[in-house]
Amino acid sequence: MVTLLHIDSSVLPGEASSSRSVAAAFRTAWEEQHPEGTVIYRDVAARPVPHITADAWSAGYAEPAGHTPEQSAAFAARITLIEELERADAVLIGAPMHNFSIPSTLKAWLDNVLLLGRTAGEAPSAQGTPVTVIASRGGSYAPGTPREGYDFVQNYLEAVLKGTLGLDLDFIVPELTMAPRNPAMSGLIPLYEASRERAFQDAATKAKALAERLATKAA
Amino acid sequence: MVTLLHIDSSVLPGEASSSRSVAAAFRTAWEEQHPEGTVIYRDVAARPVPHITADAWSAGYAEPAGHTPEQSAAFAARITLIEELERADAVLIGAPMHNFSIPSTLKAWLDNVLLLGRTAGEAPSAQGTPVTVIASRGGSYAPGTPREGYDFVQNYLEAVLKGTLGLDLDFIVPELTMAPRNPAMSGLIPLYEASRERAFQDAATKAKALAERLATKAA
Repeated sequence: MVTLLHIDSSVLPGEASSSRSVAAAFRTAWEEQHPEGTVIYRDVAARPVPHITADAWSAGYAEPAGHTPEQSAAFAARITLIEELERADAVLIGAPMHNFSIPSTLKAWLDNVLLLGRTAGEAPSAQGTPVTVIASRGGSYAPGTPREGYDFVQNYLEAVLKGTLGLDLDFIVPELTMAPRNPAMSGLIPLYEASRERAFQDAATKAKALAERLATKAA
Repeated sequence: MVTLLHIDSSVLPGEASSSRSVAAAFRTAWEEQHPEGTVIYRDVAARPVPHITADAWSAGYAEPAGHTPEQSAAFAARITLIEELERADAVLIGAPMHNFSIPSTLKAWLDNVLLLGRTAGEAPSAQGTPVTVIASRGGSYAPGTPREGYDFVQNYLEAVLKGTLGLDLDFIVPELTMAPRNPAMSGLIPLYEASRERAFQDAATKAKALAERLATKAA
């Protein structure tokens, strides 16, 4: 029995969202390999987790026995999210670019989950867990494009998901997703369509390969 | 009459927060020059603004006359925040580093305020307004330090505050603020104290200079 932790964070619902659509394709391919598996699903846009608070933050640096009631409650909410990450054999995150960075709702999830001495620090508790990030974006930020240097999604998630939580990080990057909606980008529609096609193919291929690898490991 | 928009976002309250303390020193020096001025204050940690939602987002791309009631309500909340920015002669933002990036609450404020065709785009409505950011951080991310490359606060705020909103951006960076609390950093306490001292001096000096400059301009 394997467990997938699946997080969506786009403000856009359903098929209007590239990150949700590609993540859904990944999940479908995963579930075909693991029909008996567990999927923990969090839509942090539809049901945001709380922003980190002073109580939730300070509780992470104090012995549980000394927590105030407010610290205990705030910390319990963090631990729920942390345990979901620790239970997961694989993680799938829809991380669309909103204003050159991740959505505020996904940052709130990260601020809850990053806990020094447990998920972060010398021996991160989820170290080595594979995470696939669907990092969709309205434009392109590839080397040589005018907006190169404006992508604070991939480099930031490298620092926190890989550099801090120790996860085994892989990206799928559907780009130019605003092309069909923005007349000024109409010339980029063929590139958008190619990127979208590739993202869906990658999602299916990578989900299958990962699911098979974990099945072998579990067997 | 000049108006200062002052935003705090640290999870830590009062003097426990370096960004709040240094921002308070800036504001005090500013108010000495403009005792009759207006200060609009937002503590987005204590009273978070809403995360951007599908309604709030899509309303920004549609004619107001065609908004649904949900879009109208969500958009009105954005416009309130946008008008505060547009009214401001100067902006002061406490932007502590939380997990190598800005707090989720400050990202939520940005996602509301960035509106293509108004605050962003060809002629950003707040273009040229001076903004002073108190970018405090627990460690140091200066060139040559082990964590160089893990700062996603200054470069990100350059991209959005300066590159997108067109504000005239200045930073004050109190660093190593965890040194007094983390035994492993005890050797860095003198550097922390020097950084703190410099930040308070800069806050007072810069606030005074900016207040005088704007008073001359207004006169």
